[in-house]
Amino acid sequence: MTSALAVYYTSARTLATAACNSAPPGPGQVEIAPGYVGICGTDLHIFHGSMDTRVNAPEVLGHEMAGRIVRVGPGVEGFSPGDPVTVMPLRWDETCPACRAGHRHVCQNLDFIGIDSPGAMQQRWIVPAATVIRLPDALPLKHAALVEPTAVAVHDVDRAGVREGERVLVVGGGPVGVLIALVARADGADVRVVELNAHRRRLVADLGLTVWDPSADDVAASVQQWTGGSGAQVAFEVSGAEAGVRTAVDALAVRGRLCLVAIHPQPREVNLHRFFWRELTLVGARLYTRAGFELAVTLVANGTIPADRLITRIVPLTDAAAAFEALESGGEVMKILVECAAEPERDAP
Amino acid sequence: MTSALAVYYTSARTLATAACNSAPPGPGQVEIAPGYVGICGTDLHIFHGSMDTRVNAPEVLGHEMAGRIVRVGPGVEGFSPGDPVTVMPLRWDETCPACRAGHRHVCQNLDFIGIDSPGAMQQRWIVPAATVIRLPDALPLKHAALVEPTAVAVHDVDRAGVREGERVLVVGGGPVGVLIALVARADGADVRVVELNAHRRRLVADLGLTVWDPSADDVAASVQQWTGGSGAQVAFEVSGAEAGVRTAVDALAVRGRLCLVAIHPQPREVNLHRFFWRELTLVGARLYTRAGFELAVTLVANGTIPADRLITRIVPLTDAAAAFEALESGGEVMKILVECAAEPERDAP
Repeated sequence: MTSALAVYYTSARTLATAACNSAPPGPGQVEIAPGYVGICGTDLHIFHGSMDTRVNAPEVLGHEMAGRIVRVGPGVEGFSPGDPVTVMPLRWDETCPACRAGHRHVCQNLDFIGIDSPGAMQQRWIVPAATVIRLPDALPLKHAALVEPTAVAVHDVDRAGVREGERVLVVGGGPVGVLIALVARADGADVRVVELNAHRRRLVADLGLTVWDPSADDVAASVQQWTGGSGAQVAFEVSGAEAGVRTAVDALAVRGRLCLVAIHPQPREVNLHRFFWRELTLVGARLYTRAGFELAVTLVANGTIPADRLITRIVPLTDAAAAFEALESGGEVMKILVECAAEPERDAP
Repeated sequence: MTSALAVYYTSARTLATAACNSAPPGPGQVEIAPGYVGICGTDLHIFHGSMDTRVNAPEVLGHEMAGRIVRVGPGVEGFSPGDPVTVMPLRWDETCPACRAGHRHVCQNLDFIGIDSPGAMQQRWIVPAATVIRLPDALPLKHAALVEPTAVAVHDVDRAGVREGERVLVVGGGPVGVLIALVARADGADVRVVELNAHRRRLVADLGLTVWDPSADDVAASVQQWTGGSGAQVAFEVSGAEAGVRTAVDALAVRGRLCLVAIHPQPREVNLHRFFWRELTLVGARLYTRAGFELAVTLVANGTIPADRLITRIVPLTDAAAAFEALESGGEVMKILVECAAEPERDAP
């Protein structure tokens, strides 16, 4: 193999392919050969140039991945070259108020690997062994690239406290919205999805979920009919749009819970009177815990998450920029994976 | 006694004194002689004319009260003439989705007595016996007029899940805000209050609470200093202002809870990004449960709520309009009671 390559974000709308950092793994670190890396909405925000104050360009993006161990650094136990793994890309400081209160995943000085430090979109990647999670041998690596967004969905469903038999509205049917819908359905919820994009609606419907088009359907009336006039017990706001917040709030039953998943960079007008009147709850949900991440591995491995149906296509590392542009333009895409391996990964059948 | 009198809201900014309804109590009803009736923010909204679509004028206002049983209707047991009582002014339909889900106090067809049906600002008042709560004989009736707003505070503190040792910020130091601060303090919380009005700040400080003036103090910096940089675990929004929402949201620690108490008739701009980033929770809180109402009786009776220090003055029924105007103009008032009895109530010493 010639020198390993990485995709660097250099400035707004510009990615460059160049050599990886070739240092060996240090104490407590492992070197991974990423197999597949998913492109996430946050990666798109970075690509737009919207996160230049946070991202230290040139920087390697990517945090949804699966790959294999190449080398382990001094003192690392439990991993061997060739092991299939994924990475929970969080490093916390253990000392901030959030960590001390037991909420390390939202550490106030969190290092999110792939944003704040180098990510997975490269052929060799060094990370702390503590972030690495072993994958089942039989799980195709390309499917396992969906573990990270599935862990987001597991955390969101947990934060919302979804219980069996509850009616759950998911506003926004992109990758995370669909994953939330699938996890909530697996927990026994009665789920509806709201999504503007026709391609995504078809995909959601093909997964056996009822989906509404907010540009054509009267979502409020549909919710009333579905719930016998009471409203949904839970709504997830995954659209990132003010209209999505309104749809979610208006859908909720007395004592309903709104789980806020999407990033809203600007303040949004919220109908607080309805929160008062119906005693609604809003809970913010960000990232995941280790336990949720491990559950996500199981859900992808056991087919609860039909990963292959969510992967629109797989592109080589050198085509990453084109993939970012395709996602940016919307259209007929759900999840795009970047294949990093110099030689194609031979997945289990 | 000549014919009993009532204060009727007739139209915006107009109250009229006229004869009570003189019908005897029907089956399941009791007739009460209200002793004292507090004027509440909602009563002021009605007085402004802001609730004319809901209030069926001419209507008797008032829902914060204490008085004595005069007569009991057929089939009513457990009450005798002369018994000191207060009223939990809610009638639910038992059949709506909220009632069926066990949340009767936010019944979707709630009859709030004093808004949706005749209130207590009169010398004879007929209510369902099921709404009546016996008061301790030794509790002065004028103090017991604060049971209803105390029940609001008990419910708010319960909804926020305040625990011993938590840092709690109360934004808005009017009657309900002060009561929340006192209930939270009694539960072992470390409480701070934010209030614009200087008179109210002095009163709050005299109760041994630390209070900040948002027009002069840097509340965000004070919160940082108070909490060692972590933020408050709980904030109560009791101001009704968009700036109050901002102050409360900005004050919260990771996983902090914002309890929304105030009525915000208009949608408000909310920093949803912070809800996501810090995994905050917002809970709406409205009214009270029977258990909370009964606890409020205890808190007023045992002096946890120093009712006499919150009562600015007591005016006769015929001066109710002037009292409404005084409250409307702000200034040096906390709680004003209307004395209904034709002859002054002789309270226990």
